[in-house]
Amino acid sequence: MEYNTLAAVDLGSNSFHLEIGRVVDQQIYPLDSLKETVRLGAGLTDDKKLDATIQEKAITALKRFRERLAGMPPETVRVVGTNTLRVAKNSKEFLARAEGALGFPIEVISGREEARLIYSGVVHSLPLSGQNRLVVDIGGGSTELIIGHKLRPIVMESLYMGCVSYTRRYFPDGKVDKKLLKAAELAAREQVQAIVARYQKTGWKEAVGSSGTARALAEAIRENGHSSGGITDTGLAFLREELLKAGDMKKLSIPGLREERVPVFPGGVVIMSAVFAELELEEMRVADGALRQGVLWDLLGRVHHRDIREVTIEQFVKRYHTDQTQAQRVGHLARALYKQLDPHEGEAEFRKLSFLSWAVELHEIGLTISQAGYHKHSAYVLAYADMPGFSRQEQGWLSNLVLAQRGSLGKMRSPFEDDPDLQDLALALRLAVIFHRSRRTLKLPKMKLEHSPKGYRLEVERGWLEHNTLVVHALQGEHDEWGSIGVSFEFSEKE
Amino acid sequence: MEYNTLAAVDLGSNSFHLEIGRVVDQQIYPLDSLKETVRLGAGLTDDKKLDATIQEKAITALKRFRERLAGMPPETVRVVGTNTLRVAKNSKEFLARAEGALGFPIEVISGREEARLIYSGVVHSLPLSGQNRLVVDIGGGSTELIIGHKLRPIVMESLYMGCVSYTRRYFPDGKVDKKLLKAAELAAREQVQAIVARYQKTGWKEAVGSSGTARALAEAIRENGHSSGGITDTGLAFLREELLKAGDMKKLSIPGLREERVPVFPGGVVIMSAVFAELELEEMRVADGALRQGVLWDLLGRVHHRDIREVTIEQFVKRYHTDQTQAQRVGHLARALYKQLDPHEGEAEFRKLSFLSWAVELHEIGLTISQAGYHKHSAYVLAYADMPGFSRQEQGWLSNLVLAQRGSLGKMRSPFEDDPDLQDLALALRLAVIFHRSRRTLKLPKMKLEHSPKGYRLEVERGWLEHNTLVVHALQGEHDEWGSIGVSFEFSEKE
Repeated sequence: MEYNTLAAVDLGSNSFHLEIGRVVDQQIYPLDSLKETVRLGAGLTDDKKLDATIQEKAITALKRFRERLAGMPPETVRVVGTNTLRVAKNSKEFLARAEGALGFPIEVISGREEARLIYSGVVHSLPLSGQNRLVVDIGGGSTELIIGHKLRPIVMESLYMGCVSYTRRYFPDGKVDKKLLKAAELAAREQVQAIVARYQKTGWKEAVGSSGTARALAEAIRENGHSSGGITDTGLAFLREELLKAGDMKKLSIPGLREERVPVFPGGVVIMSAVFAELELEEMRVADGALRQGVLWDLLGRVHHRDIREVTIEQFVKRYHTDQTQAQRVGHLARALYKQLDPHEGEAEFRKLSFLSWAVELHEIGLTISQAGYHKHSAYVLAYADMPGFSRQEQGWLSNLVLAQRGSLGKMRSPFEDDPDLQDLALALRLAVIFHRSRRTLKLPKMKLEHSPKGYRLEVERGWLEHNTLVVHALQGEHDEWGSIGVSFEFSEKE
Repeated sequence: MEYNTLAAVDLGSNSFHLEIGRVVDQQIYPLDSLKETVRLGAGLTDDKKLDATIQEKAITALKRFRERLAGMPPETVRVVGTNTLRVAKNSKEFLARAEGALGFPIEVISGREEARLIYSGVVHSLPLSGQNRLVVDIGGGSTELIIGHKLRPIVMESLYMGCVSYTRRYFPDGKVDKKLLKAAELAAREQVQAIVARYQKTGWKEAVGSSGTARALAEAIRENGHSSGGITDTGLAFLREELLKAGDMKKLSIPGLREERVPVFPGGVVIMSAVFAELELEEMRVADGALRQGVLWDLLGRVHHRDIREVTIEQFVKRYHTDQTQAQRVGHLARALYKQLDPHEGEAEFRKLSFLSWAVELHEIGLTISQAGYHKHSAYVLAYADMPGFSRQEQGWLSNLVLAQRGSLGKMRSPFEDDPDLQDLALALRLAVIFHRSRRTLKLPKMKLEHSPKGYRLEVERGWLEHNTLVVHALQGEHDEWGSIGVSFEFSEKE
């Protein structure tokens, strides 16, 4: 299906953004946007929980977004959360409420994935260049640095520092003095230092800043005559002087600096100064594109079947040298069995079958670590690996499905309760693994898998089982294993 | 140093063996051996704990071994534990007692490592052959199957079935009937089935059985005229018939079967029959070599500086594409700092420096999974990977050291208490990582690291720190981090 309108929502640590784009000739044109300065990162308590006040503020903002998104098909909307939602300990509970308020699922993405999407958003907003570009995006809770060439990111990192979190940590009562400024800058430089050598080796021609912080810094610097548009090292030195002169954020008044920016300004100045110092920058231009535009471009790819996630799966298949023949066998049977359980053919089913196929492609990657308990190693890698295009929840989901491929089901009790689809997919995968355990091309029986009142029922073509006693033995094991978590699994020969 | 005598102890699930070898011209000749039929695997309770009776029996046996080993240098003795010690939940407590009784450290090895050592022991006991060999070793708690060519193993697996555990599970009261025999054989065949395709693809010319089970089966088969020496499929069929005829292990009386073997015989017959059926074998010769001989050959390599562990580390460096230049930098400094803490030059120090070097070589392998928290991923891989030559404890130790390379030290509180050496090595590694964080070749200051009453003191050449404020900041972080686990870390400039 072709769609004319796509929407991206970015739940950042400083502000929430809604961006709606119109698709014309494979290009995206801005149609509408909304912004809510929620400052989610400032609502993190010392024990890393989102406090009640900030939760209310966020929910209110999301309800406003909901009105604008009303009626859009789910596959045309993508909502991503970043650093604050990555680190908040009560993220899961909050996300459940937030999804209710917004009416769309929210995906928390990893720092690297955020970097990839930012780069995409930024380069799509700039004229094409044949030179490497360095993109720096200072967010509320994290800072992404990417070097890329044309549309392709080469190195990407997400550092654990943002304008909201640094202002809170180093200037908690608003006071600014030399000592505080130095402590904050050293901490930021230490973060950047870990990547300097690699970034300098890769090299870049032009430095580009994105995000609200970069725009605010550039405006203040230009207004005061320290640049003709971008951010400069002399301009940053001027801003640091102004901060020290004021001595307190509340007294800060710099021409060109909007009031709304003041509460996160010291953190932004410090982090940008650290980036300039460590990467030895002299100036930086400012771009319009950002995370939310990157999300739109990704979405455009997905709805036109150029899904970046497919590319990631292909890369993993190569990197881990998986047995492709076996994956094909298992995949074929797993999909067929799952379709018997859920024969609908909508977008949701298409999505589930995609995940089942991806899980099958990667279910044996843990063998590169060790044969013993390899399904656990596969699940570990999928939970923690950098997988471009996948959100954290999606990786968690894939990891759970792969973990369920064999062995005890006790570990799956809670994931299955959270998500009954996962249970259906896991059964289809487990059965496919059992029937193909011999890893030989073999003639399979006709089978029928269906839901029963308390679980599942499998019918196998008459005569096949008596020649395949090992499969019978394994199916008896499945009966016991599912029984142990209160799910019935019965199998019989077809009459 | 050259040694004339080497000793290997194998704490198997059926029996404990002590083997002493004499080294002449790079060959090992048997000098002495002891055997104790402890049947450790039969002492596992239903919740997988070694019961008190079996622990006493084992300790008594080890005390006898101790007399024979008295006076041998630690580097000439290697003691390995296998499946029962892998699975027992109170293994750690038991091992502490057992090491006390034996007077030497005990290493629990993984199933794959066991397979590798068995193959080495077996092929060294056979005439050289230009053809692939399949070696099958049915132990008390696990069965190893290896295909190799000359001295090199090609495929190795350890399956979770043994003569002690299967006899206990399927014939608990000694009764043997058709149904029980079939259930046991199906379970065993299911285990073997998982590896059949790969093993048949690799192929072999000759099948060889090792271990007491193979010898007992061959003896009983030959005595009854069903072979001229080895194990045959008709011979196995005969033994199954005899078991059914007797109906009870206690009434079993087969010419050539020693009484001592009877209590584990049904399990042995079942497993060997399953291997014959799934791998379509007709006959198998029996070899003398076994795990303990493999351990001796490994030991011979180590004392002559052809340590198989070195080869494993090299393979991992290649497989994970580690940054060798960085590893050299970090390794150089880490070793220098550690030597300042522990300037002795004995075997024990040599061993610790080897481990430090290996940890440095592999400390960044987790980057292949993800940059975020890469030290945790490195530690995960080292804890679970198949690493030929390393025992489980050694892998655990390496994994802990790599985990300690950076970040919070709270996680290390208990490992450091168990092993103060680990703490010294971890500090040396952490400091080396800090000083080389920029990943550039840089001129380091002169440094002096020493123990202080409550921890450590580092002196740095005057003048260097003022130009390296980021390192100062990181060293302050170390002060805090070590302080959080009650260890003092102070640094200053040299007067």
